[in-house]
Amino acid sequence: MRGKFIVFEGGEGSGKTTQIQRLHQWLEDELKTKAALTLLPTKDSFKGVKLTREPGGTSLGKQIRQLLLNPCESSTSAIASKTELLLYAADRAQHVEETLIPWLEAGYWVLCDRYTDSTVAYQGYGRQLDLDLIHQLNQIATSQLKSDLTLWLNVSPAVGLARMHQRGQADRIEQAGNSFHQRVCDGFTALAQTTDAGKPHPLSSGPTVEIFGDRPIETVAAEIQQVLQQQIAHWFSTTSK
Amino acid sequence: MRGKFIVFEGGEGSGKTTQIQRLHQWLEDELKTKAALTLLPTKDSFKGVKLTREPGGTSLGKQIRQLLLNPCESSTSAIASKTELLLYAADRAQHVEETLIPWLEAGYWVLCDRYTDSTVAYQGYGRQLDLDLIHQLNQIATSQLKSDLTLWLNVSPAVGLARMHQRGQADRIEQAGNSFHQRVCDGFTALAQTTDAGKPHPLSSGPTVEIFGDRPIETVAAEIQQVLQQQIAHWFSTTSK
Repeated sequence: MRGKFIVFEGGEGSGKTTQIQRLHQWLEDELKTKAALTLLPTKDSFKGVKLTREPGGTSLGKQIRQLLLNPCESSTSAIASKTELLLYAADRAQHVEETLIPWLEAGYWVLCDRYTDSTVAYQGYGRQLDLDLIHQLNQIATSQLKSDLTLWLNVSPAVGLARMHQRGQADRIEQAGNSFHQRVCDGFTALAQTTDAGKPHPLSSGPTVEIFGDRPIETVAAEIQQVLQQQIAHWFSTTSK
Repeated sequence: MRGKFIVFEGGEGSGKTTQIQRLHQWLEDELKTKAALTLLPTKDSFKGVKLTREPGGTSLGKQIRQLLLNPCESSTSAIASKTELLLYAADRAQHVEETLIPWLEAGYWVLCDRYTDSTVAYQGYGRQLDLDLIHQLNQIATSQLKSDLTLWLNVSPAVGLARMHQRGQADRIEQAGNSFHQRVCDGFTALAQTTDAGKPHPLSSGPTVEIFGDRPIETVAAEIQQVLQQQIAHWFSTTSK
């Protein structure tokens, strides 16, 4: 049985890294042991959970990421915005083919830190690049691989930026500016509104669930677990006994 | 006045490198001096000639080329064919924006070693990737920048491969195999037939001229110069006195 593809999305300081690890542990604990027989049609329905991320989820992707961060050591020329988009797409194409599809087809559940929505929010809304071009490249890069569930950790930019300051990661944030982060947040909001309005999300066959990320870690983790329980029940409602 | 964008295309051992340098020298000599006043509307119409190439025509492009040649030092995983296409597109997008458009707009004539036809012939026909996808990526990467003239150096694969052997560059060639090189040649032929049939070439506003490259260097160089004289006369027929 094909695994489930669960994507975490959100701005800087939204707590994705913490929450994806929490959910990983919870899924391993719950589904492999006590809840397996009640939540899933058979114990065999759950093989395990894999964690991955974009960009940089493959060894080639790590090298592409390096190019994006430090493109022209010997030159002063800037990386063109379209080049940047194509490099992100190249990273994604490799990740989909080398990692995501093989894992899902082998039956693993995959938790992925960022997917196509981040490109729409960061490059499309944040950097204000052409949205049609971004959608076109997302379609090409993913080979139409759609997520089964998107968890959007929505933090207010002020809270997210304060968390980044605390971690000593303020430089990159300050460079982009507050208005950039507000636009990124607007982008995620617009994507969530698309699915709320009943319109199909281009690269998700499941819902985008908004989780308010300004709250304490435990509160957020509990809500994510609740969403998963409901979603698992929904996924297996037609196949369960 | 905008410069002219002249592309050299052809398979391995077709003599592009030699002929592009010959044409560079000829254009500089002829157009800057004695022929300038007869061939061009005014002496100011010719600012100079620039040479460039794809992939690797920018400093970022050189790094992308390196990724393509040696993608995963620490891994045995292969580069996915779609990733490869997207990396070539990223190289081209940077080249168009950083180099080609600024040079052409500044009035330089640009001689470019390979452009979009090579991607169609090598990746599309040679490696048999999806032609629609290649056209789509070529459109994205070029921002619709079209060549004014394409010179296709058509060598029979046997002659081209023999030249590569002589240069001691046989390893890469043998790896790809003779049938690959025949398919590349078929791809260039198909592209030339498209324009012969009066159909518009997607990324060339000018003709694709076939030059038989099996002949001696001097013979080929003389024919290319003749083609350029005719083409220059055609370009400036409406604006010349």
